[in-house]
Amino acid sequence: MTQTIPELALAPAAQDLLFREARTANTFSDEPVTPDEIRAVYDLVKYGPTAMNSQPLRITLVSSDEARSRLLPLMAEGNRAKTASAPLVAILSSDSDFHEHFPTTFPHKPDAREMFAGMGEARAPMAELNTGLQIGYFIVGVRAAGLYAGPMTGFDAAGVDAEFLAGTSQRSRVIVNIGHPGADAYLDRLPRLEAEHVITVL
Amino acid sequence: MTQTIPELALAPAAQDLLFREARTANTFSDEPVTPDEIRAVYDLVKYGPTAMNSQPLRITLVSSDEARSRLLPLMAEGNRAKTASAPLVAILSSDSDFHEHFPTTFPHKPDAREMFAGMGEARAPMAELNTGLQIGYFIVGVRAAGLYAGPMTGFDAAGVDAEFLAGTSQRSRVIVNIGHPGADAYLDRLPRLEAEHVITVL
Repeated sequence: MTQTIPELALAPAAQDLLFREARTANTFSDEPVTPDEIRAVYDLVKYGPTAMNSQPLRITLVSSDEARSRLLPLMAEGNRAKTASAPLVAILSSDSDFHEHFPTTFPHKPDAREMFAGMGEARAPMAELNTGLQIGYFIVGVRAAGLYAGPMTGFDAAGVDAEFLAGTSQRSRVIVNIGHPGADAYLDRLPRLEAEHVITVL
Repeated sequence: MTQTIPELALAPAAQDLLFREARTANTFSDEPVTPDEIRAVYDLVKYGPTAMNSQPLRITLVSSDEARSRLLPLMAEGNRAKTASAPLVAILSSDSDFHEHFPTTFPHKPDAREMFAGMGEARAPMAELNTGLQIGYFIVGVRAAGLYAGPMTGFDAAGVDAEFLAGTSQRSRVIVNIGHPGADAYLDRLPRLEAEHVITVL
């Protein structure tokens, strides 16, 4: 049976840039990446939707040698060399005190901040889920900037929180190496699940 | 001080389609959305990266009247009319048994399935985080198809799990109304956080 897949509105070149030809880079060239380039990424992906416009994602850019030297020992051994060589590294974290911004981000419901302040720990799952969505947007945005992302969860999260996020309501979720690909940057692409294993129609 | 924002590689029209002009639709026209259109979305966004290529996102498309009648009472009251009128509704869930696919998805590490089988409940947080990323990719993909998404977390998640996901290792995370915008589809866009509140440079 021949299956005709409907065409997408997004131009094929953009599909390739963001998904089809985009790859996780494991080595990087010397070309630098500036914080302003990441600000431009944020300026695009900030429009991605979150529940109650909560926007719990926070981004810590590890740019200086000093900061990087504190991060490297906290990376899983298999990720250390990659993170050492990436031009820029982003610690993506979730802020469970997202409600503090509700007067700005959810202004039509003036009691939202107080209501969520009373929820305490129950805010954390909402922060985690919506941060996950925003990390997805962010990775797409890095690619939209023509940069290559190497997202990782292999690190000592409690150690990163203590070293970089102490005194905040943030918890690290994903660390992303960002740069331009170097020599032998890519592993073979791993197989994706067929739609029949993922999609159920009721 | 004038700040120059670096230009992105992604064409401006694609930036608009996916982020800048994309909006959450709250009403929908009668134009249908077929499961094949969502298969095309999946066929693009499946390439988004996940930890260990785990791909824990599962998609249950609520297409029939019968299935929708079971879903509506489980939606928060404020979401019920939207979900009743959306041409297609997707229950996005995380599968904590993602490791069962490792022989296909992570073939270079033959003992991965067995290793993760022994982790039990500890797989759930990994499933949640990576499903979050994939929900982000999926929302971008719905927009890439020229469709409008209305993602919601306001529903009885335990009820949805019991009604639609019983006997599986899936947990519902986000429900997305999908369609073309109807009359008065949009609320005013809510403010996004300025980069200075989100990005820290070390």
